[in-house]
Amino acid sequence: MAGRASQKAPPAPSKEPLDRPNPSADLTEPWLSSVPAVLTGRFAITDVSPTVESGRRPAKAVVHEQVPIRATAFREGHDALGVTLVLHDPTGEERARHRMTPLSSGVDVWGTHVRPDGEGMWSFTIEAWDDRWGTWAHRAGIKVPAGLDIALELEEGALLLDEIAAVRPSARMLEISRNVRDTALSPEARLAAAFDPDVEAALTTDPLRVDVTSCGPWPLLVERRRALVGSWYEFFPRSEGAQGRPLRSGTFATAAQRLPAIAAMGFDVVYLPPIHPIGAAHRKGRNDSLEPLAGDPGSPWAIGSADGGHDAIHPELGSQADFVAFIARTRELGMEIALDLALQASPDHPWVSAHPDWFTRRADGSIAYAENPPKKYQDIYPLNFENDPEGLYAEVLRVVRHWISLGVRIFRVDNPHTKPLWVWERLISDVSTEESGIIFLAEAFTRPPMMRALAEVGFQQSYTYFTWRNDKEGLQDYFTELATSAAAYMRPNVFVNTPDILSAYLQHGGPPAFAIRATLAATLSPTWGVYSGFELYEGTAVREGSEDYLDSEKYQLRPRDWQAAEEAGLSLAPFISMLNAARSHLPPLQDLRSLLFHRTEDDAVIAYSKRVGDDITLVVCTLDPHRVRETMVWWDMPALGMQREDRLDGYDHVTSQSFTWGQSTYVRLDPAFTVAHIFEVTRA
Amino acid sequence: MAGRASQKAPPAPSKEPLDRPNPSADLTEPWLSSVPAVLTGRFAITDVSPTVESGRRPAKAVVHEQVPIRATAFREGHDALGVTLVLHDPTGEERARHRMTPLSSGVDVWGTHVRPDGEGMWSFTIEAWDDRWGTWAHRAGIKVPAGLDIALELEEGALLLDEIAAVRPSARMLEISRNVRDTALSPEARLAAAFDPDVEAALTTDPLRVDVTSCGPWPLLVERRRALVGSWYEFFPRSEGAQGRPLRSGTFATAAQRLPAIAAMGFDVVYLPPIHPIGAAHRKGRNDSLEPLAGDPGSPWAIGSADGGHDAIHPELGSQADFVAFIARTRELGMEIALDLALQASPDHPWVSAHPDWFTRRADGSIAYAENPPKKYQDIYPLNFENDPEGLYAEVLRVVRHWISLGVRIFRVDNPHTKPLWVWERLISDVSTEESGIIFLAEAFTRPPMMRALAEVGFQQSYTYFTWRNDKEGLQDYFTELATSAAAYMRPNVFVNTPDILSAYLQHGGPPAFAIRATLAATLSPTWGVYSGFELYEGTAVREGSEDYLDSEKYQLRPRDWQAAEEAGLSLAPFISMLNAARSHLPPLQDLRSLLFHRTEDDAVIAYSKRVGDDITLVVCTLDPHRVRETMVWWDMPALGMQREDRLDGYDHVTSQSFTWGQSTYVRLDPAFTVAHIFEVTRA
Repeated sequence: MAGRASQKAPPAPSKEPLDRPNPSADLTEPWLSSVPAVLTGRFAITDVSPTVESGRRPAKAVVHEQVPIRATAFREGHDALGVTLVLHDPTGEERARHRMTPLSSGVDVWGTHVRPDGEGMWSFTIEAWDDRWGTWAHRAGIKVPAGLDIALELEEGALLLDEIAAVRPSARMLEISRNVRDTALSPEARLAAAFDPDVEAALTTDPLRVDVTSCGPWPLLVERRRALVGSWYEFFPRSEGAQGRPLRSGTFATAAQRLPAIAAMGFDVVYLPPIHPIGAAHRKGRNDSLEPLAGDPGSPWAIGSADGGHDAIHPELGSQADFVAFIARTRELGMEIALDLALQASPDHPWVSAHPDWFTRRADGSIAYAENPPKKYQDIYPLNFENDPEGLYAEVLRVVRHWISLGVRIFRVDNPHTKPLWVWERLISDVSTEESGIIFLAEAFTRPPMMRALAEVGFQQSYTYFTWRNDKEGLQDYFTELATSAAAYMRPNVFVNTPDILSAYLQHGGPPAFAIRATLAATLSPTWGVYSGFELYEGTAVREGSEDYLDSEKYQLRPRDWQAAEEAGLSLAPFISMLNAARSHLPPLQDLRSLLFHRTEDDAVIAYSKRVGDDITLVVCTLDPHRVRETMVWWDMPALGMQREDRLDGYDHVTSQSFTWGQSTYVRLDPAFTVAHIFEVTRA
Repeated sequence: MAGRASQKAPPAPSKEPLDRPNPSADLTEPWLSSVPAVLTGRFAITDVSPTVESGRRPAKAVVHEQVPIRATAFREGHDALGVTLVLHDPTGEERARHRMTPLSSGVDVWGTHVRPDGEGMWSFTIEAWDDRWGTWAHRAGIKVPAGLDIALELEEGALLLDEIAAVRPSARMLEISRNVRDTALSPEARLAAAFDPDVEAALTTDPLRVDVTSCGPWPLLVERRRALVGSWYEFFPRSEGAQGRPLRSGTFATAAQRLPAIAAMGFDVVYLPPIHPIGAAHRKGRNDSLEPLAGDPGSPWAIGSADGGHDAIHPELGSQADFVAFIARTRELGMEIALDLALQASPDHPWVSAHPDWFTRRADGSIAYAENPPKKYQDIYPLNFENDPEGLYAEVLRVVRHWISLGVRIFRVDNPHTKPLWVWERLISDVSTEESGIIFLAEAFTRPPMMRALAEVGFQQSYTYFTWRNDKEGLQDYFTELATSAAAYMRPNVFVNTPDILSAYLQHGGPPAFAIRATLAATLSPTWGVYSGFELYEGTAVREGSEDYLDSEKYQLRPRDWQAAEEAGLSLAPFISMLNAARSHLPPLQDLRSLLFHRTEDDAVIAYSKRVGDDITLVVCTLDPHRVRETMVWWDMPALGMQREDRLDGYDHVTSQSFTWGQSTYVRLDPAFTVAHIFEVTRA
């Protein structure tokens, strides 16, 4: 047993006192004494969800989110088991107590929903208990009609009713108990008396519970709704209002003139690439050239110059006051700012001379630049947290606090997977202790374990693999994972494009491809994002096989004539406005966890539903930007809480028409006109 | 945070002191301070297997078993990560330290094997560390041949070699370091010097490890080999030697005469249904009749009469001394006894009058018999552990100790899923504390969560769903689960039939069906079992659609003429002997976790391999007892550790012939003659 001696005590879910002693609690084997009551409390409770890392980290939710709670609970023998969900708010007050129901017959999985109504660390506990009434009702319900042991069975039912009445004095229960015992009545009538709705009601609110076994509390971190729901718009402020020949950078003041149009499209969050001074050393020119021309502005991610570092603003964009005014204007329009947090430095960053130990020094005394051998990125010095972790961490925290003090409440973190995980866990924890509602979005497109880990250590949102999921099976598999198992720890922010990702699908699909991808992003995920230029169908890559834009805005100013494009009908903006209006109007589109895919006969058409309370939204979208598709869609009516023969009356937000659909619905989608239906079920 | 306040500390894997301080250790958020180092130690380690319930219960293994260890380990950025498995024996002594290797590229999953060499609570720990040599080797290996930064890269390699030599003084390392620095040599020669096999060897045994992050210790309970490997034979001693008219019960003495034949078939374990006195009240007659005839012996599971209860022996079988002699004879023949432990009582059991509180009392004062409404089982009183848990548990422990004192070391537990789980956890723990090597087999055929829970609380073996898995997909899915995820907690004991289960497949498949099912059981699972009569192809059900035997031995004596059947060629005994001989000869057939299925073109033919060290066994078996099947089998050669073009020379234990197979092998199986090949690869 020595090999176990150094292990700390495992997490023993707190237990309600049992009505009877639990003899297993006396075990003295060291490794057994530390086993929680999950299996050998009086009853067994396992596989609770949503949970993260066995409860060592909280599961995620947002205010008013409909959160499904599941648990496997079972018992020995054939008697009935009851299962209850108990929800506590951050003050420890009990806020809900639901009887859980079996999800399907014979699998021992029980479910219910909760909707926490405020931010903070909520918790929930699963309780399993001996359902003596259920056991009796099952047995008597078979035996009494069969004429077996009538007197005995009915007497035992009456005794249970007496017990209910004794615990919660009730004349009605005693009356029912008398009826059950009334031998002047037929056995059927006496049994029917026991099954009176008043008994059902009394037991539903306050069941007769014996041998209650608890599993929990499980932490549920409830954050503000923006952590789950939002429409993001990314643009480079320096491009907006850039003018002259050669082009001169736009400013916060000129960029602010673009904000009303962004708000009019229905976006909630305006995300700005880094706004800091840009280094000159090894500056990249147009199209990632190593030979910049005079006047090339450089990549905003090459942060730092003599003008300052991560806490400074590029002089060409304006002053700190200009930035604060830009934030204020954004707020006026009902939106908020997301700022980029890119922890790396140009060779000209003030950190390089002041804190060379925050970087990696090579054997020749030089500072290591970024490289992916044999490729070199000499305009970027990665940070090294090994030499002075406390000093560098304190600086990062100072920078973040600085921007929060100016009004920034969302940070889009660049490449978080290239920094140690502890930096993020500590930063997000420190910041959220000081101020609630700060959101960090992880911009990582890396392997699943790191994607998951970043979310688990605290990132409120995560970029996804969406741009590389373009076929039906790929979309279904990925979003089913995001909406079920992954939803416990990760919230997707689904961008249709980024300055780094112009997908092959967009490059080759023409305008319908843009409408399709926008529809999918805006309806599959409660948070989606667009990088500017998308609405103008910008789709030319720097070269075939690359996902980089030709004339990428990362390396040059790109003013655009939005007005002219819209007037010429060459803009997706009206369609985007419709999508965001539907998202705003339809609660299911603000939900992730209820996503369910339905069968279509054509693999180029995808169909799914979301359901929050009584609100149901159905989406059918073509995946083929080139050809007309016709198919039958088979809605899983029972999964929608309906009968197979029910009609689905509703309103399509894409075509602004009302339809009546049924379990099987014929759909024809011509990508030149209509790529999708977003169907609000008005009456089932 | 109040909702969390009552939670106990979670399991924090012990950490080796880091070479550098881990700043995340200072977090003061209550729920964060209790988070282990799994994600935010210096590196991340997750999804370790085999583990059970997050390490709160031990994973299972047996002595000398080849146990695969897996972990997901990853780090920020692009530098190399090293991963080490450290194994400790029950005394706490370190017994193995393996460098783990990536299972496949880009998934962050690492693997190795251990083979613990003794019983007890072993443990293992995963360590992840900064592999500075690996990082350098990758970078320099690309850059030096490309002519990039040659001097710098080679100097940094030399510095690492100096560091290795400084920690573990080595003239050879210093010599290599000098060669790497020797500018008289070409860059390629200097690089080649660094990649000298001596460096590789030094780093393999003792790598240059920085920032070691530990995850563990994870408990691994190593039990005796019989817990995993065995061939079981079940028979009713009262039938063996029963004679006369009316038939008189056989005895231990007459039953012992059957033992040499059982041993000759290669069985290791002789399992006896209950040997206790049988109740008379509501005794069942032939074919489960409620109207027994005089002389009907009753079901052995209706335990207890005036002659005694669970600690007594049925007088017709003999005395305690006769039983001890029977055990001794079994041992002489190289086998051991498994006794039935069926915790229920006939109405005549001494417990009923002495301890009525060990049963459930109904409202009319009667004791509750077993029922599945509307069916009644009035010959059986279930035990009730609620009223006097300590008293009843003490009696169960006393009974088990009694049989152990007579030499019983294996208990087949009847219907464990109808008793509270704590009874088993406590019993198995108490017994194993007193005496090592006692094995409990759970006879439960219930829903997966309870099957799993019984195994997790300590049962060394479990009955399975095997009899209901007869098609290729069903067998592959189920045994893949048993050999991988389930192997951490559960060991299968695969019976081809039981007194309660005569599968439809056997009823309708004739003798080839018996040979097929025996082959599958004996080669898919390291433990398999046969209930007597199987070798005589007994296959008639009491009625169509039932799995009960006609003239079930549960209710009557059934002496059989083994010798005559064998002489007439109407016995499967020779085939069973061959199977058990192959199992004894071939280490892979004693293994579970290496099971791997291979592709066949005919879904009525199944193919699989097992591999332990250099030993490989291939099995091809038809699933069609009626028709000849011909198919190609595609062996996954890389998964077998071979090249695609390698030849597989080997010996088939079924046909006693040598063959040479290849990646694609043509197989023809005529169930009338050969249902399978069990192919021992002698040279790859």
